[in-house]
Amino acid sequence: MISVDAANRAGIERLFASRPALADVRPAREVIAALAGKRRLLHAGPPIDWPRMSGPLRGAIVGALLYEGWAGGAEEAGALAASGEVDFAPCHHHAAVGPMAGVVSPSMAVYVVEDTAHGGRTFSTLNEGYGKVLRYGAYSAEVLERLRWLNETLAPLLAAALRAVGPLDLRTLIAEALHMGDEGHNRNKAGSLLFLRHLAPGIVQAAPAADAAAALRSLGENALAVLNPVMAACKAMADAAHGVEGSTLVTAMARNGTDFGIRVSGLGERWFTAPSVVPQGLYFAGYGPADANPDIGDSTITETAGIGGFAMAAAPAIVTFVGGTPEDALAATLEMYAITAAEHPQFTIPPLGFRGTPTGIDVRKVVELGITPRVNTGIAHRQAGVGQIGAGLVRPPIDVFEQALVAFAERYLVGD
Amino acid sequence: MISVDAANRAGIERLFASRPALADVRPAREVIAALAGKRRLLHAGPPIDWPRMSGPLRGAIVGALLYEGWAGGAEEAGALAASGEVDFAPCHHHAAVGPMAGVVSPSMAVYVVEDTAHGGRTFSTLNEGYGKVLRYGAYSAEVLERLRWLNETLAPLLAAALRAVGPLDLRTLIAEALHMGDEGHNRNKAGSLLFLRHLAPGIVQAAPAADAAAALRSLGENALAVLNPVMAACKAMADAAHGVEGSTLVTAMARNGTDFGIRVSGLGERWFTAPSVVPQGLYFAGYGPADANPDIGDSTITETAGIGGFAMAAAPAIVTFVGGTPEDALAATLEMYAITAAEHPQFTIPPLGFRGTPTGIDVRKVVELGITPRVNTGIAHRQAGVGQIGAGLVRPPIDVFEQALVAFAERYLVGD
Repeated sequence: MISVDAANRAGIERLFASRPALADVRPAREVIAALAGKRRLLHAGPPIDWPRMSGPLRGAIVGALLYEGWAGGAEEAGALAASGEVDFAPCHHHAAVGPMAGVVSPSMAVYVVEDTAHGGRTFSTLNEGYGKVLRYGAYSAEVLERLRWLNETLAPLLAAALRAVGPLDLRTLIAEALHMGDEGHNRNKAGSLLFLRHLAPGIVQAAPAADAAAALRSLGENALAVLNPVMAACKAMADAAHGVEGSTLVTAMARNGTDFGIRVSGLGERWFTAPSVVPQGLYFAGYGPADANPDIGDSTITETAGIGGFAMAAAPAIVTFVGGTPEDALAATLEMYAITAAEHPQFTIPPLGFRGTPTGIDVRKVVELGITPRVNTGIAHRQAGVGQIGAGLVRPPIDVFEQALVAFAERYLVGD
Repeated sequence: MISVDAANRAGIERLFASRPALADVRPAREVIAALAGKRRLLHAGPPIDWPRMSGPLRGAIVGALLYEGWAGGAEEAGALAASGEVDFAPCHHHAAVGPMAGVVSPSMAVYVVEDTAHGGRTFSTLNEGYGKVLRYGAYSAEVLERLRWLNETLAPLLAAALRAVGPLDLRTLIAEALHMGDEGHNRNKAGSLLFLRHLAPGIVQAAPAADAAAALRSLGENALAVLNPVMAACKAMADAAHGVEGSTLVTAMARNGTDFGIRVSGLGERWFTAPSVVPQGLYFAGYGPADANPDIGDSTITETAGIGGFAMAAAPAIVTFVGGTPEDALAATLEMYAITAAEHPQFTIPPLGFRGTPTGIDVRKVVELGITPRVNTGIAHRQAGVGQIGAGLVRPPIDVFEQALVAFAERYLVGD
């Protein structure tokens, strides 16, 4: 007879013990075997094929095909994507995570995060900043030019800087940022400055002054610069809790813009999916919910690891960006204690008397209480090529947790 | 018949309109006329002569005399200080402010802050970081060596960086830092990173890579790096409210380690003083209240301008440093609304629903309610040469406010 509580405890202890450190920046094809010499792209969320992909994911795929030079124009790229000659796979299947569309192609650089406690490496691309960006489905010439600078100029510079200053302990960075008003998903202002502080002395020694200044400006102006390494760190932490026999802990939540999917620690590699919904939030001038794509991106890995929407109480200023009041932010965190297995010993929330963040979503509790996780998110336009139109909050469909619980019962209680 | 309320409103509007910007870094003798070619030192707090100076202020004076080469050893420096051949004057009399002992000598570099709204310049030295530092009364060889690096290497580099990147709007920086868990006095982690972010691209272009890296490390490792320019900004804002006929606003609070003094907008240059008291707080291992010097420093200019102890509610994580609970931090700010004239339109507190910080201490309200301002502070050892032994909270003696109110009555109600 398996004790689910004991299994969950074992899983969460592994999550808490994980020590992800940013160690390197490398071309994806060199560190992600699935991208080496293949016509393959990784994307956010559970598996999906071209016909079912939403506008922003299609836009990002088109952009990546143009970026790789596999197609000469948007129309040709669309035809190639539809032809079956390019393979698509979830980031999550290859130790990677990507915000929004989350597309990773072989030539893109990725942060390499090493779990110094459990071993293993996780990956994420460089954050592109704001405005017209690939992750929101934009693929114009300026988007591709920016990608080229990020991957060909900034990435090797950051790699050299990391060699000079040494790896960056991302668990410590997240803990510190939560004491500085970040929640680590939609608000990463403090974390991005801590990231800049760590790298800056290395950056100046790694490049000519003009390039170093451009790199420092780029990181300094992007309050989401650290989101991608933080996501890779959260992936490492959540993965540490995965694969524990008899555990009902959620170890991945991810959206491809069409489906919302979760994975559960004791249920292997299977995804439980349901249609993704449109977030509620604040829209940029001229846009509204009718323009919005359903929720998209792997960034829900932050909530899976106990930050993001689960740490809203640490980040009252975020309501200027996602809507609501500081009281709502407090309530969001307090509600999540009901559906989680533990309180994080390192990630603490000053306004709650330094209580640990609610960590480790328990499928049983979600279904029993009918309370779904709260997720902070950006909002993409539903059409390819447009980009971000807002930011807000969303809840995954409860169906995915119900499906998972049924599967858990079949696997552990009905099965042999 | 003067309306005190109208006078206070006029003063506070001038304070709110002040736009202090960090514009330059220069040797003090070049920008503070009182230090040009004179054997004079500036110090924190109201006026005081050598015999009445406390241990840490004497220690800093000795260190400054050694630093200037006016004495060859500590004993000679003490004799020189006692001889009357060196002049002492408050920083506040010369548009400057200094944390703790606050000693400024002619060769030291100072930040130059310009009030772009009202004109005028204010000054503060570079922050020395932690451990054995002059501002806490230490004067060993390592203290003087560090001062030399700060003033001769870092200062010109920061000046060149500022020329490259342009002035830094300190009002905006403070507002942003309050949304990132700083209160701007004892906690300046976020503000110091925003400062680093602004300067970094300029620093790399202003110096060889090794010097630039050392400067970036020095700023990055010092979570109080921005305290001194923030203090100069607060001095500019408070000065803007000074000299309004009929106003009961406090425009300076400062301690020299022996006396606590205040100045009042409508009462000219006069100081109202009473004995300074020992702060309550957390002590470093091996030290306790019996080792502590009475409260010292000009850093109370932050509370005078509506941040620091008055903005505690924005900085719940500060209690790990000064003691108490996050509830105490909220209560500290809420209490200060009772004795202030207005809520700051730019400095807002997310956990209080973005309410403005309580700003502009009204002498009448302090005396009427018997509520004195709450001040965050560092704690210096009472003996010269030791340094910091803790951090905590303190309240000024109510006597100074009572004296000021009597003087106000004599000046405006009884006098002609």
